[in-house]
Amino acid sequence: MTLRGWTLPQTATGRSSIVAPPPWHYSGEIIAVDFAAPVDAVAALLPEGMKPAADGAASVVFADWCSASDNDERVIADPAVGQYHEAYVVLHAVRGDKKVGRVPFIWVDSELSLLRGQIQGFPKKMGQIAMTRPVSLGRGGVRKAEGSRFAAHATSHGRRVLTAAVTIAGIADRPPRAATLPLVHTRLFPALDRPEPAIYELQFGTIAGFECGTIHTGSATLAFGATEYEELEALGPVSVGTGYVFSMAFSVMGGRTEPA
Amino acid sequence: MTLRGWTLPQTATGRSSIVAPPPWHYSGEIIAVDFAAPVDAVAALLPEGMKPAADGAASVVFADWCSASDNDERVIADPAVGQYHEAYVVLHAVRGDKKVGRVPFIWVDSELSLLRGQIQGFPKKMGQIAMTRPVSLGRGGVRKAEGSRFAAHATSHGRRVLTAAVTIAGIADRPPRAATLPLVHTRLFPALDRPEPAIYELQFGTIAGFECGTIHTGSATLAFGATEYEELEALGPVSVGTGYVFSMAFSVMGGRTEPA
Amino acid sequence: MTLRGWTLPQTATGRSSIVAPPPWHYSGEIIAVDFAAPVDAVAALLPEGMKPAADGAASVVFADWCSASDNDERVIADPAVGQYHEAYVVLHAVRGDKKVGRVPFIWVDSELSLLRGQIQGFPKKMGQIAMTRPVSLGRGGVRKAEGSRFAAHATSHGRRVLTAAVTIAGIADRPPRAATLPLVHTRLFPALDRPEPAIYELQFGTIAGFECGTIHTGSATLAFGATEYEELEALGPVSVGTGYVFSMAFSVMGGRTEPA
Amino acid sequence: MTLRGWTLPQTATGRSSIVAPPPWHYSGEIIAVDFAAPVDAVAALLPEGMKPAADGAASVVFADWCSASDNDERVIADPAVGQYHEAYVVLHAVRGDKKVGRVPFIWVDSELSLLRGQIQGFPKKMGQIAMTRPVSLGRGGVRKAEGSRFAAHATSHGRRVLTAAVTIAGIADRPPRAATLPLVHTRLFPALDRPEPAIYELQFGTIAGFECGTIHTGSATLAFGATEYEELEALGPVSVGTGYVFSMAFSVMGGRTEPA
Repeated sequence: MTLRGWTLPQTATGRSSIVAPPPWHYSGEIIAVDFAAPVDAVAALLPEGMKPAADGAASVVFADWCSASDNDERVIADPAVGQYHEAYVVLHAVRGDKKVGRVPFIWVDSELSLLRGQIQGFPKKMGQIAMTRPVSLGRGGVRKAEGSRFAAHATSHGRRVLTAAVTIAGIADRPPRAATLPLVHTRLFPALDRPEPAIYELQFGTIAGFECGTIHTGSATLAFGATEYEELEALGPVSVGTGYVFSMAFSVMGGRTEPA
Repeated sequence: MTLRGWTLPQTATGRSSIVAPPPWHYSGEIIAVDFAAPVDAVAALLPEGMKPAADGAASVVFADWCSASDNDERVIADPAVGQYHEAYVVLHAVRGDKKVGRVPFIWVDSELSLLRGQIQGFPKKMGQIAMTRPVSLGRGGVRKAEGSRFAAHATSHGRRVLTAAVTIAGIADRPPRAATLPLVHTRLFPALDRPEPAIYELQFGTIAGFECGTIHTGSATLAFGATEYEELEALGPVSVGTGYVFSMAFSVMGGRTEPA
Repeated sequence: MTLRGWTLPQTATGRSSIVAPPPWHYSGEIIAVDFAAPVDAVAALLPEGMKPAADGAASVVFADWCSASDNDERVIADPAVGQYHEAYVVLHAVRGDKKVGRVPFIWVDSELSLLRGQIQGFPKKMGQIAMTRPVSLGRGGVRKAEGSRFAAHATSHGRRVLTAAVTIAGIADRPPRAATLPLVHTRLFPALDRPEPAIYELQFGTIAGFECGTIHTGSATLAFGATEYEELEALGPVSVGTGYVFSMAFSVMGGRTEPA
Repeated sequence: MTLRGWTLPQTATGRSSIVAPPPWHYSGEIIAVDFAAPVDAVAALLPEGMKPAADGAASVVFADWCSASDNDERVIADPAVGQYHEAYVVLHAVRGDKKVGRVPFIWVDSELSLLRGQIQGFPKKMGQIAMTRPVSLGRGGVRKAEGSRFAAHATSHGRRVLTAAVTIAGIADRPPRAATLPLVHTRLFPALDRPEPAIYELQFGTIAGFECGTIHTGSATLAFGATEYEELEALGPVSVGTGYVFSMAFSVMGGRTEPA
C-alpha cells in the first residue's frame, strides 16, 4: 500500500489530506488601509536582504475569500471549506532593486487556510475576523457606494488586535500597493532533533489571473491592540492613510524558493 | 437609580442590553428549497388552530443576513454583531381562511439573533451554517447565474441537520411562498414556580419594506439529519421541489399578539 | 395535537426543547476573587430596594460546571451539553435587613446555560472563558495546592473583559460570601407591542444541597476590560482582595418571584 | 536584525511564534476504547515497513490535556493556550520485531496543538471534542468510580466522527496498549515547486516521565461517522473491546527521524 496526500493525514486515496496542491483560486472582498509605521519597527520584522520603505509605508488588509482548488473539488463545493476571512499586515519593502511586500502577521478563521498558508510561508494564526459586506436591498446594511462605512476587525487569543474602518469617498484608477506588491515569504518547518529548522527558505508565489473590481477609496481609521502573543503594537500606526474597498481575484499556481 | 435595557443585562444607561427594541432591518442573501413533508408530521408541529397544506408543502430557507436596529447603531456598525447566518424550516399552513407559515425549527450563529428571535417566538437554537455566496471576479467561487450551484448546510450539536443545494436554471417572476407567507410564532417564557408558562401567546410580526431581488430558480437537493436534540427527520422530505437563490430585505416594526 | 416543551422549540414529544424544567444540579470548580468597587457604581447596578455594601464589596466568580437535569437525562449524559464555563460579577448588597447578592454581568459558553440563565434572570451573554484546572500527575499543569497559580479570563465580543489569577497560600474554614449570598435576579421578557416588558419581576432561586470542598485561598489579581457592549469598567476594581479556589455543588429546585 | 521563532511568525524577540521547541509536558484525563478493525483497512493506513496486528487491534483515545512548555511559560500560565482536547485512533502494528502504534487520524481543538502536532507528524485536524469529566461533589456529574458512564465524542467538519462511552466496572493493573505503544509518525512538509514533499520522514518522539493514575476499566461502546473529508468508517469497528478511564502524563523531550 502507498500512502497518498499532499499533506497529512495520508491514506490510500489521499482524500483525507487537509490541503491539495495548487493551483488555488481566490475571489474576495477586500477592505484595506494604508498606514505608516516606525521605520525601525518595520526593519525589525524584515528578513535579511530586505529594507523598509523610507517612509515606513505599510498596509492592513482584510479579505473575505471564496477559494477553489484544481485538485480538490470540495473546496469550491462546500462553503464551510472554501470560504474564510483573513486579516494581515503588509510591510512595503525593497529587496535588491525591487519593491516587494512582506507579511509579518496574519490571522485566518479556517483550518484549510491556516495550513495552506503555513506551507507558503504566510505566518498564519487562527483568529476571528469580521468585515462589513455590502447589501443590494433594504436597510440591514450599506451599499458599496460613497458615504458608506466599511468596518473590519480581527481578534486573536480573545483580544482585538486590528480595528479598521473605511468611509467611501471616491474611486481610484488602480489598486493599492498592498494588493500588487509581490510578497516574499519565509517557509519554516522546524526540526525536532536539532535547533536549526528542517526547512528555512524564501518563497515567491507564482500568481496568475490577478484582477480587481472598482477600487473604492476613502478616509480610514486604524488601531492595533496588544496581546502577550502578538507584537503588532510596535507598528504604531504613526499615521493612517487611505482606505480601500474593492473586489480582488487571483490564482496561486505554485511557488519558487530561494535560500533564506 | 433606574435600571434600563430592553433585555438583560440592565444598567443605568441600557447600553449593555443584548437586544434593543424594534424597528429592526434585514438585508440578506437567501438559498431556499421547497419540499413536501408527510402531512401528519406537519400537523404534529402546528399549534392549535392551524392546519397543514393539503400536500404537506414546506420549505427550507438559509439566509446570510446583514441587520440593523433603529435603537442600537452598533448593530449595523459592527459586522460581528449585525451579520449572521440562519437556517430554518417553514411549514405551509392554513389558519382560518388565511395561508400562513410556521417555523418549527431554526438555527442561527449569533447571540443577538438567538435572543431577538426567542422574543418574537422564533424557536432559535445555535448552529453552524454555511452558504455559497456569489463572487464577481475570478475563479474562487461561482456567479449568481445559470449553471451555478449554491450549497448550504447547517449543523447543530455537532451533527449536520440540513444539507441543501440549488443549481440555477432560470428566473422566476415572484418570490417563493417561503418568503411571503405571514409567519405565526409562539412566544414562550417559562415560569419557575408552576408548570404553566409565564408567557404563552401567538405573535404576528409587523413587517414593512419587503422586497426581493432577481429570483433565480433551479433544481434542488435537500436532506435532513438526526441528532438526539432535534426532530427534523420526521419531515422527510417526501419529495424535493424547486430551489431559489435571491436577495431579500424587510423590516420588523414590532408585533401583535393573540392568546395561544 | 398538543405542542410540548418547557421552552421553544415545541414539538409533540417535547424532546427538541432547549431547556427542561428544574430541578437542575450543578457540580463545579470555582476560581473567585473578592474586590471593592466604587459604591456609587455598585448602587447604579442594583434594582430598587437594594443597597450596596458600605465598602463596595463585590466578587468575580469563574466556574467550570458539570450540570444535570432531572427532566432531561441528555444533560448529564452528553458532556457537550452538560458542561460549560461561566464568569460573573456578584455585587454584595442589602435588601431590607438581609444580605444578598446581585449578578449584573455574566458570560457563559453554552446555549443551554444562556437560556436557562435568562429564564432565572441571570443576565447571561455568550463569552469565551478559560480557567486553570488542576492536574493529578505530571508537569503539564498545577496541583490544587499551596504555591499554585490558578488563572482565569473571559472574553466577550472579541475583547478580554475579565482577567484574574489566584495563587494558593492557605485554606479557609468557610466559603467566600460570593458563594453563599442569596442572589436576587430580575426576570425580564420584553413585549413587542408596547414599551413595558411582558415579564418584569424579581426571582429568588430555591437552592438545595449546597456544599463546598476544601476552600483554598490566596492572593489575587483582577482586571476588567472594556468593550462598547459592556459596562464593567465602572466597577474598578478599587482594590483586590482574597482569591479562592474550590469545588462547589448545589441544586436549583425552582424559584419564587416578587413584583420588581 | 535577525528574525527569531521556532515557528512562524518570526520577530526580533521570537515571542509571536506559535510553537516553542520541546521539552513539552502533558498531564491529561483519558477515555480510551479498544476495538478491532478489518486487517486490510488497518494495513491500508500504515506506512511501508509496518504491518497490522494480526487481529486488527486498534484503539480510540480521547484526551483532555493540560500542557506546558519549558521554552514558553505562557503555555502553562494561560489556560486558553495550554489546555485542549484531542481524539485519535491508534492502530496497533509491528515494525521489524517491535510492537508500535500509528495514528492515522486525530482531531484537536487548539491551534497550538494542531501545529505542534503537525511538526511531530501527528496528522492533526481541527475538531470539536467533548468528554465526561468526573466531579467530586454534588449531582451535576459522575464520580470516577464503578458504575459511572464516561462519554466522549468528536466532530469534524460539522459531522460526528467518533462517539464512545465507557461504563466503569473495575480497575486494571496496567495501562492499555494504546497508551504505551511507541508511536511512529510521518513528518510531511510539501514543496511548492515539485510534486515530491520537501520533508517526508518517519519521526519517533523521545518520551520521558510517563506515568498513569488508577486505570479504571469497563465495557464500552464505539461508533464512527462519515464525512466527505475523513476515512474513518473503513475501520469498522468490527468489534468493540475494553474501555479505560485514567489520568496520564508524559513529556516530549524531542524526537529522532529516519528516512520514510
